[in-house]
Amino acid sequence: MNGEDAEEGAVAERIRLAYVLTAANRQDAIAKALDIVYEQTVELPRGTIPASLEERVVGRVDALDPFPVEGQWKAVLSYDPADVGEDLPQLLNLAYGNISLQVGIRLVDIQLPAAMLGRLPGPGFGIEGLRRLCGAEDHRALLCVALKPVGLTALELADLCLALAVAGIDIVKDDHGLANQPMAPFAPRVARCQEAVAKANAATGGHCRYFPNVTGPVDLLAERLALARDAGCRGVLVSPLLLGPDTVRWIAEGWDLAILAHPALAGAYFQAQHGIAPDVLLGTVFRMIGSDGVIYPNEGGRFPFARRICEGINRRLRAPLGTLRPAFPVPGGGIDAARVPYWIDQYGVDTLFLVGSSLYGRPDVERAARHLVETVRRHCDERRLESDQV
Amino acid sequence: MNGEDAEEGAVAERIRLAYVLTAANRQDAIAKALDIVYEQTVELPRGTIPASLEERVVGRVDALDPFPVEGQWKAVLSYDPADVGEDLPQLLNLAYGNISLQVGIRLVDIQLPAAMLGRLPGPGFGIEGLRRLCGAEDHRALLCVALKPVGLTALELADLCLALAVAGIDIVKDDHGLANQPMAPFAPRVARCQEAVAKANAATGGHCRYFPNVTGPVDLLAERLALARDAGCRGVLVSPLLLGPDTVRWIAEGWDLAILAHPALAGAYFQAQHGIAPDVLLGTVFRMIGSDGVIYPNEGGRFPFARRICEGINRRLRAPLGTLRPAFPVPGGGIDAARVPYWIDQYGVDTLFLVGSSLYGRPDVERAARHLVETVRRHCDERRLESDQV
Repeated sequence: MNGEDAEEGAVAERIRLAYVLTAANRQDAIAKALDIVYEQTVELPRGTIPASLEERVVGRVDALDPFPVEGQWKAVLSYDPADVGEDLPQLLNLAYGNISLQVGIRLVDIQLPAAMLGRLPGPGFGIEGLRRLCGAEDHRALLCVALKPVGLTALELADLCLALAVAGIDIVKDDHGLANQPMAPFAPRVARCQEAVAKANAATGGHCRYFPNVTGPVDLLAERLALARDAGCRGVLVSPLLLGPDTVRWIAEGWDLAILAHPALAGAYFQAQHGIAPDVLLGTVFRMIGSDGVIYPNEGGRFPFARRICEGINRRLRAPLGTLRPAFPVPGGGIDAARVPYWIDQYGVDTLFLVGSSLYGRPDVERAARHLVETVRRHCDERRLESDQV
Repeated sequence: MNGEDAEEGAVAERIRLAYVLTAANRQDAIAKALDIVYEQTVELPRGTIPASLEERVVGRVDALDPFPVEGQWKAVLSYDPADVGEDLPQLLNLAYGNISLQVGIRLVDIQLPAAMLGRLPGPGFGIEGLRRLCGAEDHRALLCVALKPVGLTALELADLCLALAVAGIDIVKDDHGLANQPMAPFAPRVARCQEAVAKANAATGGHCRYFPNVTGPVDLLAERLALARDAGCRGVLVSPLLLGPDTVRWIAEGWDLAILAHPALAGAYFQAQHGIAPDVLLGTVFRMIGSDGVIYPNEGGRFPFARRICEGINRRLRAPLGTLRPAFPVPGGGIDAARVPYWIDQYGVDTLFLVGSSLYGRPDVERAARHLVETVRRHCDERRLESDQV
């Protein structure tokens, strides 16, 4: 049950949730673990509820071990699946609802019973499906570029789309800050950008895909999704924490659109001794709700993410998880185009690299993008050649 | 623009967002503030975008002052309303999306232009409307009890409802962990509990209201809301961060149901030097999206909330905010029934007190609840008498 071992994210009989607890000593850690299993279920102190409920409804402390960090303990708590029923919001509530308001409780693993996992959509396309959508062979990494900046008109954004698609980028996505602003409202933006990509594909024989951002008002969501799909888009960008994770689950289940998930707001959860571990939130939760690719800020970019965090997210997105498909890690947040080959060697080819600023900083975006595409393809070809020779 | 002064939450020409920044010195604080206004809009470094966009789209650093805490600065940043358009998720994105992934950035105030505020629903009932719904005169505080524990059947919960309604409690709400579990599925639970409350009201002439928890799957939400409304419920419980804030906005706009908001997951945002200040998230954001009452963990209960945080939330829920109605602060999280009069003196009568564990710990819940109701009414009558004499 250690966060690093092979069992993480595996399938369990009961709901198993692991936490790192900060406590003065073992006795306090045990008391804290017990408080959690009551707080997250009956919300009443021990002794005030019928014994039958204590047995059935209150969670169990399955394990409590010292954590490698001084003053911390790893607790594994388990719950009857009936504590959740079939509602995803209630699963998230059980995992971290009320205890978010405490201190020194960090969620570091979620393992669900097979039946519960099976009711979650997981990636509708997954790594294989997204490769197929983009005509990308197994041996190469994929490339994604964000359309920006906000403030451009729909036509200006479409011009960028055309340039990036012609250059051979696999996925051009809206910047997650593109909503329905007056400068480039959703409907004309999607129409123009999708037209541009289709035109580029027709000219090059390529399979570039344009994913518009649909993190909009929930009452307009179906309309925007239909508009995107009818225009010919095969995927969308969403920010699950802005939109609500269950709304993403609903998109994944009913729309046959690939989902690229953005981590907006997620950083609030990433505290050293509290919150939800990045690999669990972005790697496990985002994958469960149906993300085919999950964007995260890569090490060395504009955000302070450490290498082991990025690797943890990669692992959870790709590792076996019941019958759910694996999803693409999408490192971004200021990846230098010149360093993509390096990151391919670090993370492997089942990675979708999100490159932005370092292309936009160049005088000719199309040319810079084409150079990136060629470099990545050549690098991946060489890697295949080397591995064939081994 | 100080977090404590009269301007907080007021109406502005531009979107004005205030942050407390942790930085080594003033120069670093300025650099951090500038990084934010780029990161949250164009997501590109200075110098890589056209000057016209810099002027119009990138935010402005309106003020940067030393904060009373060493190593912290208060920055006021402002944005063109066109950066958001009309999407609430995009407003939250602008306020804290990407920068959540940084460190040492704490959102401490949100001020919106009148037009933008006017498009948000705010409380549909507010303090006045909720009082009317519960037949509660202006001079007294209201009482709410959570139905629990999860694990009871619909009939057992309905029995509790009956007892609490007969005792004179104003609002009986589902525990926020009651979803659609097999022990008490949503439909029979709402039917039985609402019947019980109606029966009690018929017998006593009272106006107790039952608010079921509708934090369920988004695709079943309309069905559950309709079921609750058709059964005769006049309000519901939601957890905005489990469900998605914009989904709560949608409920507030279209269902004519009072909304009690639960802070599940919110604690993840409450860091000392990062995240969103509790008064801003629970007091301003939750009110803007339509909460008529906002639950928070009171000082001295099971959660480590300080008095000044509670008072900050109270203030933001009740203060003038464009044309939005004021909402009830709902302190809970382990309030001792015996201490409610003390808290009335602290927080005033425009407060809805959420009492739970301390009633359920007693052998006769109805009797304990009746005693609480009588104590509170007597205390509020005495307060009125005293203030009349002044």
